[in-house]
Amino acid sequence: MKNILLTISYDGTNYNGWQRQHNGIGIQEKVEEACSKIFGQEVTVIGAGRTDAGVHALGQRGLIKVDSSIPIDRIPYALNTALPDDIVISAAKEVHEDFHPRYDAKEKTYRYLILNDKFPIPQYRNMSTFISSDLNVEEMDKGAKYFIGKHDFIAFCSTGSSVKTTERIIFDAAVHKESPFVIFEVRGNGFLYNMVRIMAGTLIDIGLARKKASDVETIILSKNRNMAGITAPAQGLTLVEIKY
Amino acid sequence: MKNILLTISYDGTNYNGWQRQHNGIGIQEKVEEACSKIFGQEVTVIGAGRTDAGVHALGQRGLIKVDSSIPIDRIPYALNTALPDDIVISAAKEVHEDFHPRYDAKEKTYRYLILNDKFPIPQYRNMSTFISSDLNVEEMDKGAKYFIGKHDFIAFCSTGSSVKTTERIIFDAAVHKESPFVIFEVRGNGFLYNMVRIMAGTLIDIGLARKKASDVETIILSKNRNMAGITAPAQGLTLVEIKY
Repeated sequence: MKNILLTISYDGTNYNGWQRQHNGIGIQEKVEEACSKIFGQEVTVIGAGRTDAGVHALGQRGLIKVDSSIPIDRIPYALNTALPDDIVISAAKEVHEDFHPRYDAKEKTYRYLILNDKFPIPQYRNMSTFISSDLNVEEMDKGAKYFIGKHDFIAFCSTGSSVKTTERIIFDAAVHKESPFVIFEVRGNGFLYNMVRIMAGTLIDIGLARKKASDVETIILSKNRNMAGITAPAQGLTLVEIKY
Repeated sequence: MKNILLTISYDGTNYNGWQRQHNGIGIQEKVEEACSKIFGQEVTVIGAGRTDAGVHALGQRGLIKVDSSIPIDRIPYALNTALPDDIVISAAKEVHEDFHPRYDAKEKTYRYLILNDKFPIPQYRNMSTFISSDLNVEEMDKGAKYFIGKHDFIAFCSTGSSVKTTERIIFDAAVHKESPFVIFEVRGNGFLYNMVRIMAGTLIDIGLARKKASDVETIILSKNRNMAGITAPAQGLTLVEIKY
C-alpha cells in the first residue's frame, strides 16, 4: 500500500462543500469515486480540511492509501479522466506511513476576492463577492495587519465547531487592489470554522468605514463573535495553498 | 420614444450565443424579456454584433426603442432586477434617432484567454482555453503584429457568413503573458465570422512551433481558410469593448 498525497483544485459552486454530505454532493465523494474507478478498490480520501459549500480551492490536499502500479507522476492524469471538469488533481506525491494531511499541515493560505465596481461582472459571479460602494483598501490593509501574530481568534469563529484551542498564528495578512478587484490574502498555521470569511466580513466593514482599522484589535480582545463583521459570502473564498 | 444604447456583459456559458435562437436560448432574448417586463411593452434589442455560443462579453451593446419615464441612469439597475445573474446591464445612454449599434461601431476590442499551465484551473474552465504545452509567447506576439493594418481577412473567416467585403482594419494586436494565462488582445474596425477565434487558433499554432510568426503574412495573402489554424474554442473569447 502506498500513501499518496493529492493536490486538488476545484470550483466549489456546484458542491455542498468538501466533505461527504447527507444532502448534496461533497467534493470528497467525487474524488473518492474517481479513485475507486482508477485504482479498482474502495478508497477513502482524508482531506487537509473542510471547505464550505461554494468555497473554491487551488491547493486542497487529500491523502489516499492505495495499492497501485500507476507511476506516481501519472496519477493526476489518470484521476482527471474520471473527474468532472470542476475538480482537477494537479499533483500527487508519496508520503510516509504516518503522514496526516490535517495534523501535519504547517501553513495554509487563503484568498478572498471582492469585485469592487459599479456593476457585477457575470464571469466572476461565482468566484467573488460583489460590493458596489468604494472600498478604502488602505484602511482594510491596516486592519488586516492586526490579525498578524498569535491570538485567540474565538471572535472570528462561527459556533458549531469543536476545537481544542481557538488560538492560531497568522503569519501574514494583507489587502490590495487589482482593479476592479480587492483581494484579501491571509497565511497562518491554521484557521477556525469560517475564520477567513469573518475576517473578510470585518475588513469589508472597515473598507466601508463602518469600522476602524484599529477595531480589529478590540474585536480580537473582546473574544465576542458579535463584535466582528458578518461571515462574508462563501463564493469569494479560495483555499490557495497548504504547506507541510 | 427614446433610443437607448445599453452596455451588456454576460457569461455566455449557458446560452446559445447572442442572437435569438430556434434551439437553445440567446442572450438577446433574455434582455428583451427583461426590457418588456420593466418597460411594460414589447421591446426588440438590436445588438452590435452576434457572439457565438459560449463566448462572453464585457461590453456588448444593444439598442432599444422605448417609451419610459425611468431616469436613464437608473435603467441598468431596473433591468438587472429582471435579468439572470449571468447577464448584467452596466450602462445606458440616450442616442440619436438614426443611431445603429452595428453600422455605427468604429472599433471593437476582443480578448482571447489561454490557460497555459500543467493542469487546468476549474474556476477558469468556462472562460479560457487550456493548453498544457509551453507556449512561446514572444513568437505569438510577433505573429499577431502581422494582423495589424488593412487586409483581406477571408483566410480568417468561417464559411456561412454573407458580408459585402472581407477587408478589415486591425488597429492593434498583441499577445502577452500574465502567468498562468496567455492573453491575445485585438482591436479593429470590425471582425468577420469567427475571425478572432481563427486568429487565436493560428497564434496557438505559432506558440507551439507548428507555424512561424511570419506565416501569418503568407496565410493572409493566400486568402485560403485552410492555411490558417483551427477555430479556437468559444469559451476563451470575450468581446471587451465597442467604440462609436
